[in-house]
Amino acid sequence: MSKIISSAVIRRMPRYYRYLADLMERGIERISSNELSHIMNVTASQIRQDLNNFGGFGQQGYGYNVKELHAEIGKILGLDNTHNVIIIGAGNLGKALAGYVQFEKRGFKITALFDNDPKIVGKSVRGFTVQSIDDLRDYAKENKVDIAAFTMPKEHALKMAELVPQLGIKAIWNFANTELDLPRDVIVENVHLSDSLMQLSYKILNGE
Amino acid sequence: MSKIISSAVIRRMPRYYRYLADLMERGIERISSNELSHIMNVTASQIRQDLNNFGGFGQQGYGYNVKELHAEIGKILGLDNTHNVIIIGAGNLGKALAGYVQFEKRGFKITALFDNDPKIVGKSVRGFTVQSIDDLRDYAKENKVDIAAFTMPKEHALKMAELVPQLGIKAIWNFANTELDLPRDVIVENVHLSDSLMQLSYKILNGE
Repeated sequence: MSKIISSAVIRRMPRYYRYLADLMERGIERISSNELSHIMNVTASQIRQDLNNFGGFGQQGYGYNVKELHAEIGKILGLDNTHNVIIIGAGNLGKALAGYVQFEKRGFKITALFDNDPKIVGKSVRGFTVQSIDDLRDYAKENKVDIAAFTMPKEHALKMAELVPQLGIKAIWNFANTELDLPRDVIVENVHLSDSLMQLSYKILNGE
Repeated sequence: MSKIISSAVIRRMPRYYRYLADLMERGIERISSNELSHIMNVTASQIRQDLNNFGGFGQQGYGYNVKELHAEIGKILGLDNTHNVIIIGAGNLGKALAGYVQFEKRGFKITALFDNDPKIVGKSVRGFTVQSIDDLRDYAKENKVDIAAFTMPKEHALKMAELVPQLGIKAIWNFANTELDLPRDVIVENVHLSDSLMQLSYKILNGE
């Protein structure tokens, strides 16, 4: 896919994927773009436009086949591949992520947890033995790692942002609340939990 | 503010706020819209448009006063108010949220943690004693609660979504990975951590 797709479209695709999964679970086989638009709170024309970026999947007068569209969006998002994810920072957030069942359902397989705290290293978390950060280099040599989740404190994140790309790990899921200075070919997704709190505050203020 | 502001604009405001806070920390007093646009990776005209929704704050030839703009955006987001936040579900995620220092910096004050597990109730987490969910009703009568963070498993979230609005709590920060069926006047912000993983997967696939 060489066409540049806007980031707003990319941001909506996981939402489509989730809603379609939900419809599938409820045994719904097809849906009109109007109904889909209603449950997703987006206009039907927005949905058509979004999907047309990838070829478009609906049929006039039929709507969308839920299972097919779910599979197609999964492919667009690369969810038909398995991604091995390591978690760096086995504190509360790292442990919480290690326990999210639906990551695995979507092809994200947590494969290891690392920490630098001798009190945590060696402990068992959801069936994983927390490994020492000193062993990360060897681990990455011997195992395929697609994504490193950064759940360590800010001050360690900067150091890890230097090491991780050297190990051939090309994607970082960053919870460390700091902008990382990374080589261009490393892909970063920053998660700022307080952004959603701030949006909530706006809605409270404006009664939305 | 009676004008309807699009959700895309609202989503960008916390980002502006964070970037401006970062500039302040670095001692930068003013910034041109071009520079701001460069660090934020948004066009300068987008920034002007976004801010014009709220009256616009830049001065031709001067740019933006970092501290003033930060304060103005804080007001737009309602961050000049203090919000009392309770956390329902004192598992790993609940504990992680209780420990986020920057929430408090932005006026979100964690005031209590609740859980239904007798093994967890009574334990201390970051200086809070985890309270029994059975005591939530009384707690809400005696204390101002602005936001309830839902960090419990999905199956309990549905039950809590019935209870919480009855207690006069008007905003839910929902991590429970399920759509909640709530009265219209309850404001919900859903956090889907796997959405950002799916976006990361898309970027890996497309080498962005």
